[in-house]
Amino acid sequence: MTAAHPVAQLTAEAYPKVKRNPNFKVLDSEDLAYFRSILSNDEILNSQAPEELASFNQDWMKKYRGQSNLILLPNSTDKVSKIMKYCNDKKLAVVPQGGNTDLVGASVPVFDEIVLSLRNMNKVRDFDPVSGTFKCDAGVVMRDAHQFLHDHDHIFPLDLPSRNNCQVGGVVSTNAGGLNFLRYGSLHGNVLGLEVVLPNGEIISNINALRKDNTGYDLKQLFIGAEGTIGVVTGVSIVAAAKPKALNAVFFGIENFDTVQKLFVKAKSELSEILSAFEFMDRGSIECTIEYLKDLPFPLENQHNFYVLIETSGSNKRHDDEKLTAFLKDTTDSKLISEGMMAKDKADFDRLWTWRKSVPTACNSYGGMYKYDMSLQLKDLYSVSAAVTERLNAAGLIGDAPKPVVKSCGYGHVGDGNIHLNIAVREFTKQIEDLLEPFVYEYIASKKGSISAEHGIGFHKKGKLHYTRSDIEIRFMKDIKNHYDPNGILNPYKYI
Amino acid sequence: MTAAHPVAQLTAEAYPKVKRNPNFKVLDSEDLAYFRSILSNDEILNSQAPEELASFNQDWMKKYRGQSNLILLPNSTDKVSKIMKYCNDKKLAVVPQGGNTDLVGASVPVFDEIVLSLRNMNKVRDFDPVSGTFKCDAGVVMRDAHQFLHDHDHIFPLDLPSRNNCQVGGVVSTNAGGLNFLRYGSLHGNVLGLEVVLPNGEIISNINALRKDNTGYDLKQLFIGAEGTIGVVTGVSIVAAAKPKALNAVFFGIENFDTVQKLFVKAKSELSEILSAFEFMDRGSIECTIEYLKDLPFPLENQHNFYVLIETSGSNKRHDDEKLTAFLKDTTDSKLISEGMMAKDKADFDRLWTWRKSVPTACNSYGGMYKYDMSLQLKDLYSVSAAVTERLNAAGLIGDAPKPVVKSCGYGHVGDGNIHLNIAVREFTKQIEDLLEPFVYEYIASKKGSISAEHGIGFHKKGKLHYTRSDIEIRFMKDIKNHYDPNGILNPYKYI
Ligand SMILES: Cc1cc2nc3c(=O)[nH]c(=O)nc-3n(C[C@H](O)[C@H](O)[C@H](O)COP(=O)(O)OP(=O)(O)OC[C@H]3O[C@@H](n4cnc5c(N)ncnc54)[C@H](O)[C@@H]3O)c2cc1C
Ligand SMILES: Cc1cc2nc3c(=O)[nH]c(=O)nc-3n(C[C@H](O)[C@H](O)[C@H](O)COP(=O)(O)OP(=O)(O)OC[C@H]3O[C@@H](n4cnc5c(N)ncnc54)[C@H](O)[C@@H]3O)c2cc1C
Repeated sequence: MTAAHPVAQLTAEAYPKVKRNPNFKVLDSEDLAYFRSILSNDEILNSQAPEELASFNQDWMKKYRGQSNLILLPNSTDKVSKIMKYCNDKKLAVVPQGGNTDLVGASVPVFDEIVLSLRNMNKVRDFDPVSGTFKCDAGVVMRDAHQFLHDHDHIFPLDLPSRNNCQVGGVVSTNAGGLNFLRYGSLHGNVLGLEVVLPNGEIISNINALRKDNTGYDLKQLFIGAEGTIGVVTGVSIVAAAKPKALNAVFFGIENFDTVQKLFVKAKSELSEILSAFEFMDRGSIECTIEYLKDLPFPLENQHNFYVLIETSGSNKRHDDEKLTAFLKDTTDSKLISEGMMAKDKADFDRLWTWRKSVPTACNSYGGMYKYDMSLQLKDLYSVSAAVTERLNAAGLIGDAPKPVVKSCGYGHVGDGNIHLNIAVREFTKQIEDLLEPFVYEYIASKKGSISAEHGIGFHKKGKLHYTRSDIEIRFMKDIKNHYDPNGILNPYKYI
Repeated sequence: MTAAHPVAQLTAEAYPKVKRNPNFKVLDSEDLAYFRSILSNDEILNSQAPEELASFNQDWMKKYRGQSNLILLPNSTDKVSKIMKYCNDKKLAVVPQGGNTDLVGASVPVFDEIVLSLRNMNKVRDFDPVSGTFKCDAGVVMRDAHQFLHDHDHIFPLDLPSRNNCQVGGVVSTNAGGLNFLRYGSLHGNVLGLEVVLPNGEIISNINALRKDNTGYDLKQLFIGAEGTIGVVTGVSIVAAAKPKALNAVFFGIENFDTVQKLFVKAKSELSEILSAFEFMDRGSIECTIEYLKDLPFPLENQHNFYVLIETSGSNKRHDDEKLTAFLKDTTDSKLISEGMMAKDKADFDRLWTWRKSVPTACNSYGGMYKYDMSLQLKDLYSVSAAVTERLNAAGLIGDAPKPVVKSCGYGHVGDGNIHLNIAVREFTKQIEDLLEPFVYEYIASKKGSISAEHGIGFHKKGKLHYTRSDIEIRFMKDIKNHYDPNGILNPYKYI
């Protein structure tokens, strides 16, 4: 269903102003010999496997491409520690990589950095069904963590469309938000402990921490969302939630964003403790998704300007259905919504979610996409998308080939005041980029929003922090980076 | 109802090994003149008001007493900034103080430190009913924050028995847990932004942050639970939850702690999303409380070894009552519980809670108490209390006057694996303290628990972190302290 995979331009060529840091050593045969002495064959990939090398070098959006010649895939914390100590001593730059599903160019090298993949650290370590504490290696794929917990009557307190590839450690390093943030809240509240290898190889761990622990500054918090710039997360402990006994969903068609807001306030008040997701998509997002999922019948009869997916989860199916049915009836009677469809069963529930979860992949299927992820006050949430579409339209860039832009789409997590903007393109061009930036950032800054709600900074937004953060905050962040990683070898050219 | 207020021994006399840091300046008339130049009369208290001075010097447990001669109560962030800059330049030591309800000797001076009270910074700044974002000065009393949000159909995501006195900034600085942690989770997840004055007077703020913001290291997290050692919190932004439309509670009598655990697992599974508190008390806790609340009829017919209070909150009274009634019937039929009583109405609900909320004050009403607050795996949770009671009993210290110990009580937040130990005493003696410490800490360390679940470190547990934290963690914490507060003037002699 996806278009042919183009190869991204080399990041170093697309952004010639970014120069390789000459303090970093260039990998040589002695280094390779050292890594071979501590790792087995299946824990090392180099130029003998060019295709695999390529997949670690290129990002999911096909927008960034690095030139690493070495991928290390250690299978233990101890080996990660040895690798980091060696790299720090030799000043070899390193990019930690999880599932490589990141959307800001954070997880791939820019030049010849070594990729340190967590893929082989993929074991569940422990689960306590009484407290819900789940401990695992950082490289456990999100889908597997979900499956494990599902089998133990619990759920991972975060889910997202990249679940088949992204890893627990990657999600923690990004401080991802995802689809059920509204219900289960932030990773800053749910992560109980982390095991982290510092740039100098030291291991700092509080992975055995219990639910509550007020013994000193909460150091683990700094690593949540640090995007691999101050340490390599090797283990994660998180509090899982009890598996809901009842799940339900409704899909709404709505004519304007004002009504989306009203619906949200109503849902918060009436569905309250069973409301577990409130997601929206605009017309463009769904048009791309209809094209992408061509064999799947769309759940509503008509097309609308906006769509909302509401999910409920609770412990009593009858009670939940009663609440949701009343809600649907009420919103229909009062003509708040144009059309609504409630899932009849689990298969239906999954189908409804497919229309939300496929949006990013659908938008990415034409060649690539420009992607922005922002927080705004709810009243301003959609305005940024409208402004960008207008701007690209005015420049005559949106339309059928050979125009470069297929569609400009807005969708996201209304419940969290978080919108994603996907500019689905046939190719990446300087003209589009110049129209988008700094326009988008300035727009967000003027509304006092955040230029990154959940995807992070990475390469894409490095140097843009001042749109959201003050000078003193940025100074303190730089201090943290210098303190933990004085040689600057971890994920250079990015973040701060 | 409380016993006469004894005056605590001076901390400096009770702990003669702790010496005043000679680098700190002794307050003189020039300093006073400066403070008078920036503050009005009602923002300064000194030796002309000895009684008020005394109340800022002594802690809630009557266990610690400092010797400060100056209390500053600025009414703006700007004034806090000026005060801190001056104190930092002159090396005058400062103790930030909220409601002074802290239980580890963190909020009162040890020697002659200036007390910086947030009491006059008591305004709500902003509330957005759509997103639930609540912004206020740090000195807003928790009760007032609750009242404000209640009037706006929301609730503060934390409540605790000290709500009439403790402040929003104090609770954040302690990273308090409280009674509804089980439902609303940790402050690390709920606090959206903080405004903080650093020791050198600089103001660092992200108080306008929205629900989600991934722009760099999450600096605010370090101040949550920092107990005033690296900055003065002057403003807090937090996400409030929608006010539940239905509240209910049941009070259970139970014969052993094994059954308490079984009841918890059952409640998590069957009450699930409406379960908002699961609290337990042992026989001793309730005996003290019956004595303390002498005019109030106890809700159960008989006395039991353990008591459990379950609270539910949700959006539909009929649904919730149905779930809770089924739960009560089921646990009674299966003889899991000995006796159970469900609240008939709001007054009843409040009465049931009184029996839990009064435990700390009741235990403190005989003269004072030794207090421990620990996290343990649920299976081990009560064992520490049993071990301590046995130890004090073996030494013949518990009983009627003149024995020094009235009762040794265990109670707390089962849902969070958090037990409080209150040793209600007629007087503090070296013999009791030597029996308790390091015994309690070693016991907790042997079970891999935390020596502070929610009350923090303060003066009481300074130097005890190694029972829960590794050397490298402690080293990193010391680095943080030195980085933010190089002169060490903020809350000295405590924490790390
Ligand atoms: C289709 C799709 C949908 C998405 N939907 C959402 C969504 O709803 N919400 C959301 O928040 N995000 C979403 N994302 C982006 C999200 O950031 C990633 O899916 C996820 O957080 C990254 O996990 P990963 O394991 O792939 O990490 P990577 O992409 O490999 O890495 C992400 C960052 O973390 C670092 N890192 C990775 N692992 C470690 C480690 N063990 N230790 C230290 N640093 C490490 C990397 O260096 C990089 O900086 C989506 C992505 C895709 C492709
Ligand atoms: C009866 C009773 C019941 C309690 N129940 C619970 C409970 O269930 N759960 C729980 O977690 N705790 C409980 N506590 C203890 C709890 O720590 C406090 O009630 C609360 O967190 C402290 O708030 P406060 O404003 O009184 O802060 P204070 O006691 O004044 O100060 C606490 C610490 O924070 C610092 N501080 C205060 N304000 C600021 C500020 N603005 N900026 C920087 N530092 C500051 C102080 O220096 C001190 O180190 C209870 C206490 C009592 C007396």
